[in-house]
Amino acid sequence: MPSSNENIPKNLNGWAATGKGKQLENMELPLKTFQDNDVDMKITHCGICGSDIHTIDSGWGPTNYPCVVGHEITGVCTAVGKNVTHIKVGDRIGVGAQSGSCGQCDDCKSGHENTCSSGKSTFTYNSKWPTGEEAYGGYADKWRGHSNFVFKIPDNMSNEIAATFFCAGVTTYAPLKRYNVTKGSKVGVIGIGGLGHFAVQWAKAMGAEVVALSHSDKKRGDAAQLGCSDYVVTSNKDEMKQHTSSLTHIICTAYSTHFDWPANLSLLKTNGTFILVGLPEAPMSGIPAGLLAMKQITLCGSIIGSPSDIQEMLDFAAKTGVKPWIQKYPMSEVNKAIEDFREGKPRYRFVLEN
Amino acid sequence: MPSSNENIPKNLNGWAATGKGKQLENMELPLKTFQDNDVDMKITHCGICGSDIHTIDSGWGPTNYPCVVGHEITGVCTAVGKNVTHIKVGDRIGVGAQSGSCGQCDDCKSGHENTCSSGKSTFTYNSKWPTGEEAYGGYADKWRGHSNFVFKIPDNMSNEIAATFFCAGVTTYAPLKRYNVTKGSKVGVIGIGGLGHFAVQWAKAMGAEVVALSHSDKKRGDAAQLGCSDYVVTSNKDEMKQHTSSLTHIICTAYSTHFDWPANLSLLKTNGTFILVGLPEAPMSGIPAGLLAMKQITLCGSIIGSPSDIQEMLDFAAKTGVKPWIQKYPMSEVNKAIEDFREGKPRYRFVLEN
Repeated sequence: MPSSNENIPKNLNGWAATGKGKQLENMELPLKTFQDNDVDMKITHCGICGSDIHTIDSGWGPTNYPCVVGHEITGVCTAVGKNVTHIKVGDRIGVGAQSGSCGQCDDCKSGHENTCSSGKSTFTYNSKWPTGEEAYGGYADKWRGHSNFVFKIPDNMSNEIAATFFCAGVTTYAPLKRYNVTKGSKVGVIGIGGLGHFAVQWAKAMGAEVVALSHSDKKRGDAAQLGCSDYVVTSNKDEMKQHTSSLTHIICTAYSTHFDWPANLSLLKTNGTFILVGLPEAPMSGIPAGLLAMKQITLCGSIIGSPSDIQEMLDFAAKTGVKPWIQKYPMSEVNKAIEDFREGKPRYRFVLEN
Repeated sequence: MPSSNENIPKNLNGWAATGKGKQLENMELPLKTFQDNDVDMKITHCGICGSDIHTIDSGWGPTNYPCVVGHEITGVCTAVGKNVTHIKVGDRIGVGAQSGSCGQCDDCKSGHENTCSSGKSTFTYNSKWPTGEEAYGGYADKWRGHSNFVFKIPDNMSNEIAATFFCAGVTTYAPLKRYNVTKGSKVGVIGIGGLGHFAVQWAKAMGAEVVALSHSDKKRGDAAQLGCSDYVVTSNKDEMKQHTSSLTHIICTAYSTHFDWPANLSLLKTNGTFILVGLPEAPMSGIPAGLLAMKQITLCGSIIGSPSDIQEMLDFAAKTGVKPWIQKYPMSEVNKAIEDFREGKPRYRFVLEN
């Protein structure tokens, strides 16, 4: 039972997906049973992530409807279980795409909860708690979950700004950190969007020179404002050629099935690193093995970040001033926001507000 | 001019490829001009590498015939240029696949001469010296080249044993070392052959547990003798499934165009490393991006090794007793050796002997 609030709610009021292509419907759904390690949050904000749309549409396999998506959630703590020590009622808090892990596997024990290999991770939506109860995300008024994946928001960061750090932020921060982006690095960011506009800022704040790699000329101004020192239109073969062997890292936030691997890998210096974030649906093809070998390129996948990555990212953002460019929508206008999202309108992240 | 021998030879006697599919022909060919940094070697042994056969056949593009292949060369030093300090006449010495690099680029300056990005590397055959003269390999009686890529053979290692370290040895040693194979690692070796039988021994000597991954059951006995604690027949789906998420590293020495990426990557633990050595001709396809991301797998290419890798490898082999399994052929029977090589007979490396 919670230590600080006897009136523990039973239900959330959320905007649920009920089938592919349908509008979200407002409805009451049960919160999980309150346990000793849990935290209750009154949601103030929730970012809209591409994963939300994929899940609404059953894009990664059948979604368990009704499903409340949203995994860039911030709010205020309204109750804590008796085992919770790092969060107290009234704290401004946030949670991301992962809400639980087994805690027992090698990954969890070594601080890599994001790759928990037990198959028992709880994701923030379209997933189950260990109790068997359904996990619901942030397109709602309340959230409840294990405190291990809940973080205090830094004092100098508002809830609306903090929200999108919890997925887009850490998804880009963690691999750039892991693969040693630093002063002297030259980082190419493929795709200037929700993930990419974070990636540019992180790499710049880590001391690197940053180059935008975009399929069109449209984001040239934004890229410069975000911190890019150069801009390459990837469909322009001459421009691509001029940048051959110039980058130490590429972070790819916009992968398509027609991705030109030879042209993109050629941008890397020898011993360079190509980081793939996001989850393309189709297998990757046409990767030139010879180039990978001759240039000793490292190609790596990355998935969100661990709790320690998230904490480190929040501290780093608070210190360096990295922050998302957002547009806000009232939570009640979530369907309009999703429509606009589908039309590619975010510059660069939408945030729902209660 | 050489400091220690006035009778500097002008020609080598070698076995040259003269066209795709043709037998090698014995002929005299010019040695490069002797320069102050050069070393002359009387060749005692030369290993036969898959790359030799590819080059004989113009498999990586047109070969510049006549071409003397062979880049696992050992012998005795017969002359040194006046700038050479680490080698003296009479030393037992060896040279591998690379014989020169620009020395000026970031890679060369940071000790990664093997990925020299200037485009000015000299490979040991089918390549040019900076003088414009043709570089000839080890299927010959003599070799001459820059001393930077020439190494003394450890006292407790014979020339016939030392030869194949210079390509097959370092190609497998360098990436296993670079990607931190150590006690606690569990390394899968795909392909028990010329490269693979070295990889098994290196990984074992580095403290790892080693698992052979072979397409058939034929090499089970050899794998155990080389140091593998387990053997998986990769065409057996049940065996593969039993080993899901069990390996920290895979080194792939036998890539084919029908390579089953999902099945092989599934063998890796999260945050595992897949190392591709060798140079497949066709682009790689069917790589599951989701698996790469969800398991945070690192996929990396590697090409031979730098001079410092080669020296370190020789020291490590001398200390640990790692050594190739070889069969010898007289140099004069090189065409017979190639015929046997093409039939897949090496167990596991052929060495030509003068």
